[in-house]
Amino acid sequence: MLTVPETHNRRRAALRSRLHDGQLDALLVTNLLNVRYLTGFTGSNAALLVAAADSADDESGTLFCTDGRYDTQSDQQVPDLRRLIDRPCDIALAGAAASAGHRRLGFESHHVTVDGLVALTEAAPGCELVRAGRLVEQLRMIKDDAEVEALRMACAAADAALADLLEQGGLSPGRTELDVARDLEGRMRDHGAAGPAFESIVATGSHSAVPHHRPTPTVLTAGDLVKLDFGALVDGYHSDMTRTMVIGEPAGWQRELYELVATAQAAGRAALRPGAEVHDVDAAARTVIEDAGFGEHFVHGLGHGVGLEIHEAPMLAAVGEGKLSAGMTVTVEPGVYLAGRGGVRIEDTLVVRDEAPELLTLTTKQLIVV
Amino acid sequence: MLTVPETHNRRRAALRSRLHDGQLDALLVTNLLNVRYLTGFTGSNAALLVAAADSADDESGTLFCTDGRYDTQSDQQVPDLRRLIDRPCDIALAGAAASAGHRRLGFESHHVTVDGLVALTEAAPGCELVRAGRLVEQLRMIKDDAEVEALRMACAAADAALADLLEQGGLSPGRTELDVARDLEGRMRDHGAAGPAFESIVATGSHSAVPHHRPTPTVLTAGDLVKLDFGALVDGYHSDMTRTMVIGEPAGWQRELYELVATAQAAGRAALRPGAEVHDVDAAARTVIEDAGFGEHFVHGLGHGVGLEIHEAPMLAAVGEGKLSAGMTVTVEPGVYLAGRGGVRIEDTLVVRDEAPELLTLTTKQLIVV
Repeated sequence: MLTVPETHNRRRAALRSRLHDGQLDALLVTNLLNVRYLTGFTGSNAALLVAAADSADDESGTLFCTDGRYDTQSDQQVPDLRRLIDRPCDIALAGAAASAGHRRLGFESHHVTVDGLVALTEAAPGCELVRAGRLVEQLRMIKDDAEVEALRMACAAADAALADLLEQGGLSPGRTELDVARDLEGRMRDHGAAGPAFESIVATGSHSAVPHHRPTPTVLTAGDLVKLDFGALVDGYHSDMTRTMVIGEPAGWQRELYELVATAQAAGRAALRPGAEVHDVDAAARTVIEDAGFGEHFVHGLGHGVGLEIHEAPMLAAVGEGKLSAGMTVTVEPGVYLAGRGGVRIEDTLVVRDEAPELLTLTTKQLIVV
Repeated sequence: MLTVPETHNRRRAALRSRLHDGQLDALLVTNLLNVRYLTGFTGSNAALLVAAADSADDESGTLFCTDGRYDTQSDQQVPDLRRLIDRPCDIALAGAAASAGHRRLGFESHHVTVDGLVALTEAAPGCELVRAGRLVEQLRMIKDDAEVEALRMACAAADAALADLLEQGGLSPGRTELDVARDLEGRMRDHGAAGPAFESIVATGSHSAVPHHRPTPTVLTAGDLVKLDFGALVDGYHSDMTRTMVIGEPAGWQRELYELVATAQAAGRAALRPGAEVHDVDAAARTVIEDAGFGEHFVHGLGHGVGLEIHEAPMLAAVGEGKLSAGMTVTVEPGVYLAGRGGVRIEDTLVVRDEAPELLTLTTKQLIVV
């Protein structure tokens, strides 16, 4: 990945400016993904203390902590920060914050548990522990170039895997959902993925009407709608795409359902622009489906942010709040599910841009007939 | 898996008896793994309210909640409980608890975040929210027969995958760590695993001295120690095993290091008995390594519980607390790591039994020379 220490330094500087806004002396970052985002560390245990400073470049109050298993790895991945090797990391850094004389110590109150706060409070005498919420997640919503590059590679691995699968008869009648899932995941690895971004959904026939169906030994059969919802993991970033195909000649209702969802999906994509309210983006696609009389069969939100997590802010949903900004990466994935018959979902991953949204998922959205 | 509704009913009855002990009117279970353990539900979003009752069989105060995506699935997996389809589940059930007149409502304070508690408190007017900690995890420490069966299958899938790998030249010089990891994971699936239990560790040569090395394109070379730490996921249960092999003729120091770790591992296994203090079990193995002068190179705990999580209670570590009981499933995995040269770890998954611990990992612990 194209991240260099300067990337993480820049992210930490942005965070420090938020600490001033919240009148915090320091923030204790315990969400491991946030630690990764701010430092580049990829191990399974770490925490980070970031202190407010008058200068954005001032890292003198930044302290990284991991345990002995990651001594060598953290030396390589986090060469630019003061390090503490101790365990548990959150407790060690809370103690360090108290020793450093921080009075208002922010903590990630959406991540720290109730029991965890009791322990932190004991470990940081003299500190007032302040609910700081999702400060880092707010930064993470806007992807920098290195992140978009990782997502682009993750999307490309999924696109390429699907192309290979189709070309090599991977959706032939007689194969099982499990066969297809495993095949797709192997092909994503062939194209550079560290693994699948989540448990792949392969749903054929009436299973396609189950939004989050898990693959089974059920056999693909001529006449089935077959829905594939899958993604690749590259450098910690997740891609997410869905395509629904028909095996053999599509029936009229299948073709109509597909066209409806494709039209709604295009409307959702077109609504992606900086400043748009997320619930309006959801509505842009949902209205198309409701107007066709299928509103009750679109049982989930339109999409979600994607990055170091497969589901992250912003949520594009009827109950969602907030506005889009350039640099956000989101999915657009309307679906219509007819119980017992079949369902269609079409999903891309895109970057919100000032001009027009940029598609990272490049597979065609024309109906593919296998 | 051999779980039937009665299995979950029995687990809930055991939980209800704990509620009486804690003088709780009800417990709100939000840790999804705990919900799975108590109901059999395998979806990605759910919560469970369990009310105290005078009779162990009384499920009238039990209420399961999931969202609309899982209507059909929860109907099949949780046919025996009252269901609520709503979102967010924790808030919906907190409201239901308040409506039911519960006064002391326990919550999983090791799992609910500080922000989450604020929301629950608002949603449950009239309820006193009581930190209830790891009530369900305490039950989960002792595995019932269905759980041991799942773990046995998960361990067998890993054993069989390693046997196939070795038989078919999977550790030949020239292959990369990444090749081996992928190969192992594919073979575990061939033997019934839903997937790997965690990201497989394949570490060759000096990489074997990194306890949690991630596979790289590094090539296996004659003279290397090669360490494989991997496991299979079956019905939600995780197996965990490590074997360290030598490619080509072992050097004297490699053979000695291996014998030392094998001796320590045997001592750790022998110390597994009901009533043993977990730190004494750690010490049984650690002393062997310390006495040989390698104590500083054994940088982690001896082992951990394993089940629905890859790491769960009890922890077998020098700082661990508590005693073993029959029916606990744990790993025993001492390691000695010589930076720049190589390391050896040997790990099994076992069940603590009254007589002698039962090995679920069946691969030989004799040094395998590839």
